[in-house]
Order: sequence, then C-alpha cells, then structure tokens
Amino acid sequence: MTIEIIAIGDELLNGITINTNAAFISRSLSTKGYQVSRHTVLPDRPYRLEEGLKEALARSTIVITTGGLGPTCDDITRDVAANLFSSSFHTDEEVEKELRARYGDGLKSLSNQSWVPVKAVLLKNRVGTARGLLFSEQGKTLVLFPGVPQEMQPMFEEQFLPLLPKYYAKTEEVISKIVHFGLLTEDSVDPMLRDLQLRFPQVEFGIYPGYGVLSVRITSKEVYAIDLCKEALEQKFTTFLFEESEGKIEKAIHTVFTEKKLTLACAESCTGGQLAAKLTGVPGASHYFLASLITYSDAMKQILLGVEPNTLSQYGAVSRETVIEMVTGLLQRTGADIGLAVSGIAGPDGGTKEKPVGTVWIAIAIKGEVPQTLRLQLKGSRETITVSAVQRTLFFLWRLLAKHSSLTQWELPQ
Amino acid sequence: MTIEIIAIGDELLNGITINTNAAFISRSLSTKGYQVSRHTVLPDRPYRLEEGLKEALARSTIVITTGGLGPTCDDITRDVAANLFSSSFHTDEEVEKELRARYGDGLKSLSNQSWVPVKAVLLKNRVGTARGLLFSEQGKTLVLFPGVPQEMQPMFEEQFLPLLPKYYAKTEEVISKIVHFGLLTEDSVDPMLRDLQLRFPQVEFGIYPGYGVLSVRITSKEVYAIDLCKEALEQKFTTFLFEESEGKIEKAIHTVFTEKKLTLACAESCTGGQLAAKLTGVPGASHYFLASLITYSDAMKQILLGVEPNTLSQYGAVSRETVIEMVTGLLQRTGADIGLAVSGIAGPDGGTKEKPVGTVWIAIAIKGEVPQTLRLQLKGSRETITVSAVQRTLFFLWRLLAKHSSLTQWELPQ
Repeated sequence: MTIEIIAIGDELLNGITINTNAAFISRSLSTKGYQVSRHTVLPDRPYRLEEGLKEALARSTIVITTGGLGPTCDDITRDVAANLFSSSFHTDEEVEKELRARYGDGLKSLSNQSWVPVKAVLLKNRVGTARGLLFSEQGKTLVLFPGVPQEMQPMFEEQFLPLLPKYYAKTEEVISKIVHFGLLTEDSVDPMLRDLQLRFPQVEFGIYPGYGVLSVRITSKEVYAIDLCKEALEQKFTTFLFEESEGKIEKAIHTVFTEKKLTLACAESCTGGQLAAKLTGVPGASHYFLASLITYSDAMKQILLGVEPNTLSQYGAVSRETVIEMVTGLLQRTGADIGLAVSGIAGPDGGTKEKPVGTVWIAIAIKGEVPQTLRLQLKGSRETITVSAVQRTLFFLWRLLAKHSSLTQWELPQ
Repeated sequence: MTIEIIAIGDELLNGITINTNAAFISRSLSTKGYQVSRHTVLPDRPYRLEEGLKEALARSTIVITTGGLGPTCDDITRDVAANLFSSSFHTDEEVEKELRARYGDGLKSLSNQSWVPVKAVLLKNRVGTARGLLFSEQGKTLVLFPGVPQEMQPMFEEQFLPLLPKYYAKTEEVISKIVHFGLLTEDSVDPMLRDLQLRFPQVEFGIYPGYGVLSVRITSKEVYAIDLCKEALEQKFTTFLFEESEGKIEKAIHTVFTEKKLTLACAESCTGGQLAAKLTGVPGASHYFLASLITYSDAMKQILLGVEPNTLSQYGAVSRETVIEMVTGLLQRTGADIGLAVSGIAGPDGGTKEKPVGTVWIAIAIKGEVPQTLRLQLKGSRETITVSAVQRTLFFLWRLLAKHSSLTQWELPQ
C-alpha cells in the first residue's frame, strides 16, 4: 500500500514555481505515520496528465494531486480525472449557493466552479473557489487539491486527513524518530551510523543536512531498536544535541526566551532582515522579540546604533570591533536583555584578500556582560552565505542561552 | 527528445526538505530554451531508484538527478547509476590529488569520493567533495549532481550547461515569452486569453499566479503570433504591466531606485524583516537601501521611530495614524528619500471584529510630501499574510516610483 503525490503545472516544470505543496503534504502525512513513496510533477497537457495519473494509480493505493482545478483554460485536472473514473458532471446547487453567498452574483467563475463530477466526494475550500475532489473505486483513490498553498493546506488538513483512514488502512506500523544536531557535519556522524547499522540491521537511517542543522531519522518496525540507536547517538553527540521536534532553531529560541522571560533585539547588516524574519515567523514572537535594526549602510550603523566613525574607518564594517559597538549600542537603545549583531560580506562583490566573501562577524551580548564574538568563514552564493549566517548565529544564540556554552568554547565543524 | 529531472532522497519524500533543485534546474534550462517534461522524487532505496531511473531513461533523452552522491551510507545514486551503465569503478588519482590539496590528508571521505565509475565523465565540484557524473550511451544521457544546492548550482551552470548541446540537439525552436502583471487576478485575464486562444490556435498560454504578481507565458513556434498576443495583453492591462524579465518586484525596485539615485528606508512591524530581506537579497542593494527598523513591540515604535504613545493607545498599532507616524519618524531619523511603513495583524491571534487577522496598513512617504496610506485586507495563514503584505507593499512602492500612481488611485483586485 503506497501513497504518491503528483503536482500539475507547467509553472513547476519551467521553474517559475517551487513545488512546496508536495513537501507540505509529505510532512503532514509523515507526522501521522504515513509514508509517501514518490513525487511527480506533470505538465498541463491532457494526454500527458492522463498517462501520468494512470501509471500512478497502477502503482499506488492513494494518489494525491495538486493544481489545475481553477476556472482558467490551462486547468485540466478535473476533466482528466473525471474521465479516468468515467464520471459525468453536474451543477452542484449547494456549491453554487455557497459560492454565491461568499462572493456574490458577480463571481465570473461561478458556473465553472459549481460544475463538478458526479462521482466525486467534494472537499470544501474555505479560502478560494475550487472544491477538492475525491474519487475512489476498486481500492484506488485519487484526490485532487487546488494548487494555491493557502487553499490546499487547510483543505488537506481539515477535510482530507480525517477521511484518510477510510481509504487507506495502515497495515504495519513503521515508526520513525528524528534527532536534530546543531552545527554537526555528515562526516562526523556517518561512522557511528555505519556501526549502528551493523548492530541493528532492522533499523534504517537517513541523514539530512540542513543549514547549521543535521537531522538523523531512525526508522524501524521495532521501537526498542530505534530507541537504543537514538540514545547512542544522543550520548555521543550530546554537546550538539538540539531538542526541538521540528528541528527549527527559531522555535527552540522562542521556547528558551519565553521560558526564561528574556527579551531579544538584533542588529543586522549582511543578513538584511532574514534573522528577524526567521524569528518573527513563529506565532507569538512578540512575547520576546523587541526589534531588529537593519543598518545596511555605514551611516546607519553610526546614526541608529552609535557605532563610532573611527571604528568603521579603522577596522571596517565587517570586524570584531564594529559588531561589538553594534550590539552595545543596540542594548542601550532597546533595553533588551540579550542583543545580537551580525555583519558580513554576502557577495558576490565586496570581498578582499583579508576578508573574502563569506566573512561574517557575530556578537552576542547579555545585558551587563562583555559581548562575545566569533568570526565565521562561509562558502557559496550570496543566498547560501546569508542563510548559513542566519542559521549559525541563531544556533550560537540558542547554545548560549540553553546550554550556557560560550561562542568560542567548542569547535565549529566546517 | 525530452529532459526530465529526478531528485533522490527520503528527506524530500517525508517533507523535511523542499525540492528547490528541480526548480533551479528547470529555470536554468528554460531560459536556455530547453523544456523539462517531468520531475520525480525517488527514495534512497536501490531497487526503487534503479526502477525509476530505467523508466526515465526509456522515456527521455536526458535524465538529470540530484542527491545521493555523498560518502554516507544512504548515498546510493552513484552505485545504482554505474550498475545501469555496466561501469566498474576505479580510484581517480586526479580527484584524489585535488581533494587532498583542498582538504588535506585528514578528509575522512577521501577514498570514497575519489572512487568513481570508469565510464563516467566527471564534473568538478568547487564547493564540496562529490564529483558530478555523466553517463551517455546509445543516445541516452544520465547526469548525476550532488543534492546540496550550493554544490549543485555552480556545477550545473559552469560544468554541465556548456556540455549540454553535445548530448541534446534542439530539433525545433519553440519560443516562450512571459509577461508579468502586478496585482492582477486570474479571473480578470482569463476571458482575454480564451479569446486570444480562439484567434491563435498555434499559441499556448500558461497563467501563473504568485503573491501580488500574475505571470502569463505565451509559447509557440511562431514568434509573430507570440508577439501579437503579448502586445494585445500589454495594451489591455497596461496599468498593471510590470516590466522585469524575472517577474521579481524587488529587482524592479532595485532598478528604479538606482536609476533615479534615490534612497529607501523601511519601518516594519508584522512583516518582521521580510520586506528588508527581499530587497537586500538582490546583489548591490546597498546602493539604495539604507535601513529597515523592525519595531515589533509598541515600545520600540515609540523609542526607535517616535510614534506617540497617545496614537498607539487611541488608534492601535495597526492604524493609518500609526503607520503615518512610523514613516514620518523613519524619514527624520534616516534621512532617506523614500520611506515605507507596514503594520498589520499576521495572526493566528490578535484579530478583532474591526481589525480581523489580515488587516494591514501601509504608508509610503516621499521626502517633503504628505505620506500616502492604504489598508489591505489579506487572507490565509500567518505566512501567507506576511508574504502577501510584503509583495503588495513592494508593488505599490514600485508603482508610485515608476508610474507615479498613488496608492489609492486604482482599484485593488482581491
């Protein structure tokens, strides 16, 4: 019994849009104990779509699609699916009534969007106009969702997940547990995983390196074996261990700040607001997050944070001296308990021999204490450097607060 | 002749990682005139991977994979691919020498990463240790890339793209042109596209709605037909027309600010740094972008921007009055030519009957002029609301600068 996901749309195949829907659905199913066996992206062409859906239904018990349910000329999923299940169409009066109530009589797509396949179970859409459609015959289920994430996501979780057990019985319980480590490399973990693999052949390991975080997934039918492996890993890499179920450092920071009733302010330069954006992405961030001052120019570092012109001219904006003055000025101005400053060279231009692209200085200050600093040397594109700088800075902040480890106290694996 | 992309890794199938690699490769190929016909994601299982690769090679001329080339136990792509092309392995001395020169003798994966299939053309990796591998036999080409984006991307563009014409001859020239419109809805464009479709049956249309931007792709073998359709669309929706080849509003803003030699500062609340992050994501943003003050708490709006306590208590942080004071204080403090302030309720909590979740106030001020304001009512999750607020705000800013249209001058389609 397998589940697969098909995203439909030329915009995915020409790279205009990234397929976040498949990841969302996979994550949602995975946390409920369902494994997804394949993702596919198919174009907006009736023949190619029909062929792809047939293949998938031959292979899998449940096929979930996203995209192509709208009223426009390239929305073909509804017709192709209805045809596969030999279903005729009719105008669903309830749908029509509901759409009219929400959008008024002027809705141009009213007749199109209430024209639905007779054989389909309808899934409500509380954000947009397209209904989700569920076809099920002879043990094969095809479920169609709209492609717009904010329409698909609530429909999937509220309408479809409660129905799922009806169409898909989990036959055997395969369990997965995930351990997250901060700033640990694949290289360091791999020998231990190979060793564990020999001792526990019934267990499967997956290693997922992210920016600053490495996640290890342990899967087996035998929960005691999972737990033994998990404990062994946690014990060996205890200083890197990072306890947050989703592996999101911004959530771990949220937890430690709110538990300790501390406030945070940031001063950003090269990260350009990404640090603040990450932290404020977590609902309720206002309980601890006060402000971030993105001082992108030297003048703003002086005016908004009180960095001395001499410091900037003598040491440059990317220096230990500058981040110390940034974080000191930040604490004075905001009154936050903890301050964090980042300044670096994200590239592609601006690097020098002494300070190549990827040089990033971090300062973290606890009110009343001397600021701690660290220099990072990151690699990659502008985007990679800024994302890595954000993730690593956040991890250092968390370590300092949650584990009382200073910035320089432990080796930083590259 | 078709090209398809296969991403390999359980982390994609359980949603830990989003498949950005397929989008990157598709976009890169698409701009060079190559169309990708399918994306697939397969698990780290030798049998399933082999089966998937065989299917793909039967279907397509070129199959591009990402992931599974590292030295760890779940990296199986290299072995499976070599097996498909009946290739033995050998230690490549040049690879070994190069890795030793870059990483020293201590590199744990040295012997693993220099052990390569004899039949493969090697693609250099200037960021990490895994070589890319290209197999080609009997008109079928399989190219393997590492899964880490910062390794894959330069390898793809610098090593593979120049080789591509050797393995794949474009037989017929299908041309695509894209038109981007700001704040236009699918509903509004669709009738015209249906009409054009009747008049130009040799043309294909794709509509790609994004946050605040709607892109229409016009594809045909006949360039005159594309141009006629493009002109017709541009003429009809001229007030929404948005001239930037990638459809990225932050790049359009970058262009208009640098051309006019103006400076920008932002004051953010609900967008929490996302606005600044978007703008500073474009290389060279420091030429016009001075600062963003993310004043997440009421106290910070007072301290850092000079918003009056009375204004906050009487009208609330999400109000016309507050964003006007935010933008006014911002211009005074930063000396920027243009200021932009956003304050809203991103949710899930904090909404009221008068100001439900999704209420967002924007103010834009040109130095010496009265600030303009607008209230948006957005829908969806916290993430959707903040992303929409950012995109729409940026679009309004661009319109004001590039087209001299005031914020309220034209209807905002919902």
